[in-house]
Amino acid sequence: MDQPVVSWGAPHTERADAARNRLHLVATAREMIAELGVDRLTMDALAERSGLGKGTVFRRFGTRAGIFQALLDDGERAFQERVLAGPPPLGPGAAPLERLIAYGRARVGFMLEYREVARAALDGRQPIPAGAQTPLSQTHIRMLLGRLDLGSVNLDILSIQLTAALDGPLLLYLSAADLEPGAAGTEQRLAQSWQDLVQRVCHP
Amino acid sequence: MDQPVVSWGAPHTERADAARNRLHLVATAREMIAELGVDRLTMDALAERSGLGKGTVFRRFGTRAGIFQALLDDGERAFQERVLAGPPPLGPGAAPLERLIAYGRARVGFMLEYREVARAALDGRQPIPAGAQTPLSQTHIRMLLGRLDLGSVNLDILSIQLTAALDGPLLLYLSAADLEPGAAGTEQRLAQSWQDLVQRVCHP
Repeated sequence: MDQPVVSWGAPHTERADAARNRLHLVATAREMIAELGVDRLTMDALAERSGLGKGTVFRRFGTRAGIFQALLDDGERAFQERVLAGPPPLGPGAAPLERLIAYGRARVGFMLEYREVARAALDGRQPIPAGAQTPLSQTHIRMLLGRLDLGSVNLDILSIQLTAALDGPLLLYLSAADLEPGAAGTEQRLAQSWQDLVQRVCHP
Repeated sequence: MDQPVVSWGAPHTERADAARNRLHLVATAREMIAELGVDRLTMDALAERSGLGKGTVFRRFGTRAGIFQALLDDGERAFQERVLAGPPPLGPGAAPLERLIAYGRARVGFMLEYREVARAALDGRQPIPAGAQTPLSQTHIRMLLGRLDLGSVNLDILSIQLTAALDGPLLLYLSAADLEPGAAGTEQRLAQSWQDLVQRVCHP
């Protein structure tokens, strides 16, 4: 039974050995990034370190960018799991405004954690860099806004506005030199600014 | 004296004939777009219609995308002129919140008017599609926010959030099919949603 070449999709149709290889490759890639940094992770280096051979790495990821896309997809899935089924206030069980604040704060942390992986996942074939992350944020924010009493506001557009307001500072900061030195301070400022924004927007 | 090949920059150093050619080419390009649509405007067609020859068009614009970038730059300059020196509430003279509302409403109109030109100006060499438009919006919004009394909010980040919230819906709508049929209704909805957002954010 043939597996799709590049895609991470439909893991339930993977053969057991393919699934094992995938987990092993992703874990090895994470180790290498932690030890050597993003720039030193190449197809060849991953093949050598994993002991799985270049053919397997190539079939699984297609390109070097494909490795990082797989890591990003993996991180997105784990993040989504925390949002949909993790403990409150990020997960279900807290009031909508609390969850909205918690979502943005967690998302800022996620985007900062994955910023180099996300950048390396771009190989010029994608139409818009932020595209892949938009749906979860927008859908989730739209759902939470629907549980608040915001009068006659257009919630579909407001959810797009807030998603863009959440991603925007990070996408712009990402290319700025001032992100690098004090990442912790940046995260705190961005998280606080998200909280300030939604508290003002959702003020009764 | 040599002129730069692709750039529109530094028009005050242009020789009179180069300036005349540029104006003629831009005016001809606008006519062709109005009559034939964006897709039919090519380097060859522009050279033929303008009567200036392919060499002149090539030296001026470099690529087909360069024609559209020049039209966009031209439109941006005219828009900026309205913001900095036009009549209120878009121009100076109105209260800060009124100007903020007027800015977003006008910007939505501008982005919708130029959406096909902006798309055609991209030839895959630009890092981020919206990059070129960000500074004006962000600088202007930051200036207006500074004149409002918003307490302890981080105005630098808020101006980025609002710039992203202004561009976001349009960038996302741009690729959606639902923009095409009722552009007038879309403009109205987006303009109203901008007004709703900033009124909530700037509520004392």
